[in-house]
Amino acid sequence: MYQLLTDLFPICRSITGNGVRETLNTIRKYIPIEIIEVPTGTKVFDWMVPREWNIRDAYILDENDRKIVDFKENNLHVVSYSVPVDKTVSLTELQEHLFSLEEQPNAIPYITSYYREHWGFCITHNQRISLKEGNYRVVIDSELKDGSLTYGELILPGSSEKEIFSSTYICHPSMANNELSGPVVTTMLAMWLASEPRRHTYRIIFIPETIGSITYLSRNLDHMKQNTVAGFNVTCIGDEQAYSFLPSRNGATLADRVALNILKFKHPGFIHYSFLDRGSDERQYCSPGVDLPVVSVMRSKYGAYPEYHTSLDNLDFVTPLGLQGGYTILRDCLELLERNGIYQATCLGEPQLGRRGLYPSLGTKNPQQEVTEILDFLAYADGSNDLIEISNIIKVPVWRLYGIVEKLLAAGLIMEKTIS
Amino acid sequence: MYQLLTDLFPICRSITGNGVRETLNTIRKYIPIEIIEVPTGTKVFDWMVPREWNIRDAYILDENDRKIVDFKENNLHVVSYSVPVDKTVSLTELQEHLFSLEEQPNAIPYITSYYREHWGFCITHNQRISLKEGNYRVVIDSELKDGSLTYGELILPGSSEKEIFSSTYICHPSMANNELSGPVVTTMLAMWLASEPRRHTYRIIFIPETIGSITYLSRNLDHMKQNTVAGFNVTCIGDEQAYSFLPSRNGATLADRVALNILKFKHPGFIHYSFLDRGSDERQYCSPGVDLPVVSVMRSKYGAYPEYHTSLDNLDFVTPLGLQGGYTILRDCLELLERNGIYQATCLGEPQLGRRGLYPSLGTKNPQQEVTEILDFLAYADGSNDLIEISNIIKVPVWRLYGIVEKLLAAGLIMEKTIS
Amino acid sequence: MYQLLTDLFPICRSITGNGVRETLNTIRKYIPIEIIEVPTGTKVFDWMVPREWNIRDAYILDENDRKIVDFKENNLHVVSYSVPVDKTVSLTELQEHLFSLEEQPNAIPYITSYYREHWGFCITHNQRISLKEGNYRVVIDSELKDGSLTYGELILPGSSEKEIFSSTYICHPSMANNELSGPVVTTMLAMWLASEPRRHTYRIIFIPETIGSITYLSRNLDHMKQNTVAGFNVTCIGDEQAYSFLPSRNGATLADRVALNILKFKHPGFIHYSFLDRGSDERQYCSPGVDLPVVSVMRSKYGAYPEYHTSLDNLDFVTPLGLQGGYTILRDCLELLERNGIYQATCLGEPQLGRRGLYPSLGTKNPQQEVTEILDFLAYADGSNDLIEISNIIKVPVWRLYGIVEKLLAAGLIMEKTIS
Repeated sequence: MYQLLTDLFPICRSITGNGVRETLNTIRKYIPIEIIEVPTGTKVFDWMVPREWNIRDAYILDENDRKIVDFKENNLHVVSYSVPVDKTVSLTELQEHLFSLEEQPNAIPYITSYYREHWGFCITHNQRISLKEGNYRVVIDSELKDGSLTYGELILPGSSEKEIFSSTYICHPSMANNELSGPVVTTMLAMWLASEPRRHTYRIIFIPETIGSITYLSRNLDHMKQNTVAGFNVTCIGDEQAYSFLPSRNGATLADRVALNILKFKHPGFIHYSFLDRGSDERQYCSPGVDLPVVSVMRSKYGAYPEYHTSLDNLDFVTPLGLQGGYTILRDCLELLERNGIYQATCLGEPQLGRRGLYPSLGTKNPQQEVTEILDFLAYADGSNDLIEISNIIKVPVWRLYGIVEKLLAAGLIMEKTIS
Repeated sequence: MYQLLTDLFPICRSITGNGVRETLNTIRKYIPIEIIEVPTGTKVFDWMVPREWNIRDAYILDENDRKIVDFKENNLHVVSYSVPVDKTVSLTELQEHLFSLEEQPNAIPYITSYYREHWGFCITHNQRISLKEGNYRVVIDSELKDGSLTYGELILPGSSEKEIFSSTYICHPSMANNELSGPVVTTMLAMWLASEPRRHTYRIIFIPETIGSITYLSRNLDHMKQNTVAGFNVTCIGDEQAYSFLPSRNGATLADRVALNILKFKHPGFIHYSFLDRGSDERQYCSPGVDLPVVSVMRSKYGAYPEYHTSLDNLDFVTPLGLQGGYTILRDCLELLERNGIYQATCLGEPQLGRRGLYPSLGTKNPQQEVTEILDFLAYADGSNDLIEISNIIKVPVWRLYGIVEKLLAAGLIMEKTIS
Repeated sequence: MYQLLTDLFPICRSITGNGVRETLNTIRKYIPIEIIEVPTGTKVFDWMVPREWNIRDAYILDENDRKIVDFKENNLHVVSYSVPVDKTVSLTELQEHLFSLEEQPNAIPYITSYYREHWGFCITHNQRISLKEGNYRVVIDSELKDGSLTYGELILPGSSEKEIFSSTYICHPSMANNELSGPVVTTMLAMWLASEPRRHTYRIIFIPETIGSITYLSRNLDHMKQNTVAGFNVTCIGDEQAYSFLPSRNGATLADRVALNILKFKHPGFIHYSFLDRGSDERQYCSPGVDLPVVSVMRSKYGAYPEYHTSLDNLDFVTPLGLQGGYTILRDCLELLERNGIYQATCLGEPQLGRRGLYPSLGTKNPQQEVTEILDFLAYADGSNDLIEISNIIKVPVWRLYGIVEKLLAAGLIMEKTIS
């Protein structure tokens, strides 16, 4: 995963343009995503697909023709969606087009101006205060014209039409946790899913944030509302710090229940955010009338770490170990969605486990832990609780129930209940 | 308000009689209340309207014919509803008719005997222990005979038949917080309501406590049960100490929700009493089968401050500032009732606020607080939450939502939902 | 009760056999239980009634023919359901059949082997480590053959077919709290119930644990599911230490509500266990599909005191005072079940208590506590709350409400509501 992330890192992405296409084509080397183009001007809910933005080069020259700021060194240097410019300006005029962070003087900030024509450069605050009076030549060789918005989609059919939805975004330039960790982990999860038998159908999309999710919803909402049982917005999943959770607006969907159960048993110290702390595409997926069951399981959440939206969110901040942890927690969630079910005990009273080799033959002072887990599971296998609920009630990690379910199914002591 | 309170202070009120009439006539100088008389002997639920009590004078003379206790100095000196008496008694016999408070030796207590024939005097404990052996002439020039119970009513029609109910009592003699603060603040609220366009109809009554609310309910219950959406028992609303809240028996009516929302954001340290702490007319309004949505928003609650039901609950204890605070909090509640509604976002997904001037054009690290409030409001404007609920969820004072609602209505981004 | 317990103590009980019959016959001297025999091999849910086990004698002789372990001294010395044996074994072989507790070196443990053929002796750990190398003669004069499982049943009819269920077990040899306190307290409760008028029918059973409750349910489940309103598993109710509570699986049945209300007001420090801490016949009574409203009100819970399942759970651990406390708390629960009801106030608003002698005639600063209780009761006597709920809400012990209900019924101020 770290290698793929490193490959994708230098590409200059925005909400439209060739950076998105290059990113999707790189991912297509691993999983067979379909790439869809939606023309500029297409009406999508309350929005319109904007003009496509591409950039070839950008720099600032000082009076000695030295490149003091160079897009080719770091694509964060240019405000995303900057219109073309090529002129000489005084330092005073230049200042109006510069962005820096006083409190993080070594970081280049990430700034966008999608919906108002503007141009600008982002630099470190240390560089900014070292700029001398004089004239500067500013060049942005960009293009903003009719084109299309590009996104990727992968449908992995399962035995059921019921869908698990996964969304991640590919619209930020060179940033690692709040951008590339999402597509990279999603790609690996898709590879794993493709290699396994699946109960659910999986709908996996790679989109530009906000305008992309709105565009996607405007084309797929009816089908998704009818079929989606759980969904994940995959973002900020590659650093080694926190595990964190952002609920759906509803707060009690299957996606919420799955993620909270897994996090509680696996990383009990995880940070539980409120939906008020949202900031990514759950803003669209959970909006009134859309109401999809989408949550975010993250490591350090966007906005909650100092490196966020700066050049410090880089290949050092995200690590192979961090990506592995993020991948594993999401895979655990998907595995639970595949294995979850409602079971009903087939006999009244407790079954006689002893003659099935599931109970110790000698009655002693301290019964064994595994026997307790089987009996506790059976006590709540009443045809109404699913595995998640039983795990929560009996305080046993759900993955320890998978084996118990198999043993009890084999012994005919439980049956799976079909939900009408 | 303080002037009106000062004017009303000297009047000797009881549950019937001319003191009530004089009080109502004073209030009628400000608002056009109708004054209703209900004859003695009228059956009202389980009770009967008692005989009317009036008093002209009362005093105790010592052996030197000195007036040692004089009703004209403080009308608390006479037990309310005392029968006439004019005789000379020994100190021992007199003691059986004296009331004082050992733990508050400078306070005259307030004592009533409405439903058993009795006479008595209330004095300070300091005076009581200074009384010398000897004979005393006791005179109470009162009258207890068939007459009527008097109350005032003001109906302010609104565009809807749905009613807000407000009740306050006018049956205590010279006490300021636990009596006059209620009618005075109610009078000012009625003046304000009369001057504004109203969605709701307002039913505002001035009654003697207990027997008055029972009498009023017995004549108006069916209409009130059908139309009342929220009600307030206005009492103890003029001192400068606490803000406090006493819920309805139900605890979750619109009145409870409104009062708790306003208090939480405006005076977060308010005291939240239980319905078990009740002691005023909510005893009737919330009784089984009556079940009106009536709460009390108070400052220092009856029974919870040492001056309560003594001569110390006077014009010093209640202040202009205290009355102003009480008036404001209740007006905030009424304003919320007028403005509350259920709104539904008109577009799927978030609207594009930017092209409507509601969103900053540059995407930066820290979005603005006002944008967050608009987006949070929209996220919960789902056609089921009312303004109170949204305010509680998104933790924004409801009065900050009024402007947001207006902007979003003007932009066509929400519509008000008619409740079927 | 302590005398009966002392009489029953020496009998060697197991899940079948003459010890059970002798125990039931002793109890029959006090209450007219019917004794039922269920033949070996009868299918009961997932189980089968096992062969009947009886034992006449058992001992271990050392090389000097000294009885170093003697069943007649303490019947815990033999593993319950041991098959017959009479042979001479080396110490090494003997060790494989010995059970002791290293951490309680003076206690004989209680061990069973109901469903696997086995023989064994239980001794103190101190004795075990003192055993010398050599040969030992082991004799168990027992018999395991077709017979029957024995239990006792007492039905006390009431004016309603609705039943209160009580179950206790009679399958442990000489142990006092975790065995005999249950049958003894149950016997006394049955005597008390038999002497009183009863609204409910009482179903009281004395059974061997697990196989007995399964057997009983397999023969009576339909009737019990239809009629049982509350039930108690009576066990561990005779020591002087804790009071404790184990809920039904449902957790909110009438039995739970009754027991929690009584315990909260009577022994507020009681231990509130989870259903996960279960270990007795509620395992069957609350299993999916059975779902009877059965709880346990206990003193020191099985498994939660060191003497449990050893020879230290003896006539010193259980005391007359401990039994009396256990009896009283259960009788309080049954009394509440008999007296519980839903009442509705008959007049709107508060009634005029004064003319009925229920209210003080003088209005003063501090109303009396008893008046508050009457008014609080009336405020919640709304035709939906039962006595338990009102007691919980108004924070008055339910037994103080019994007298209030009688007074108010007599005054015609409430009526009992028939539940449709």
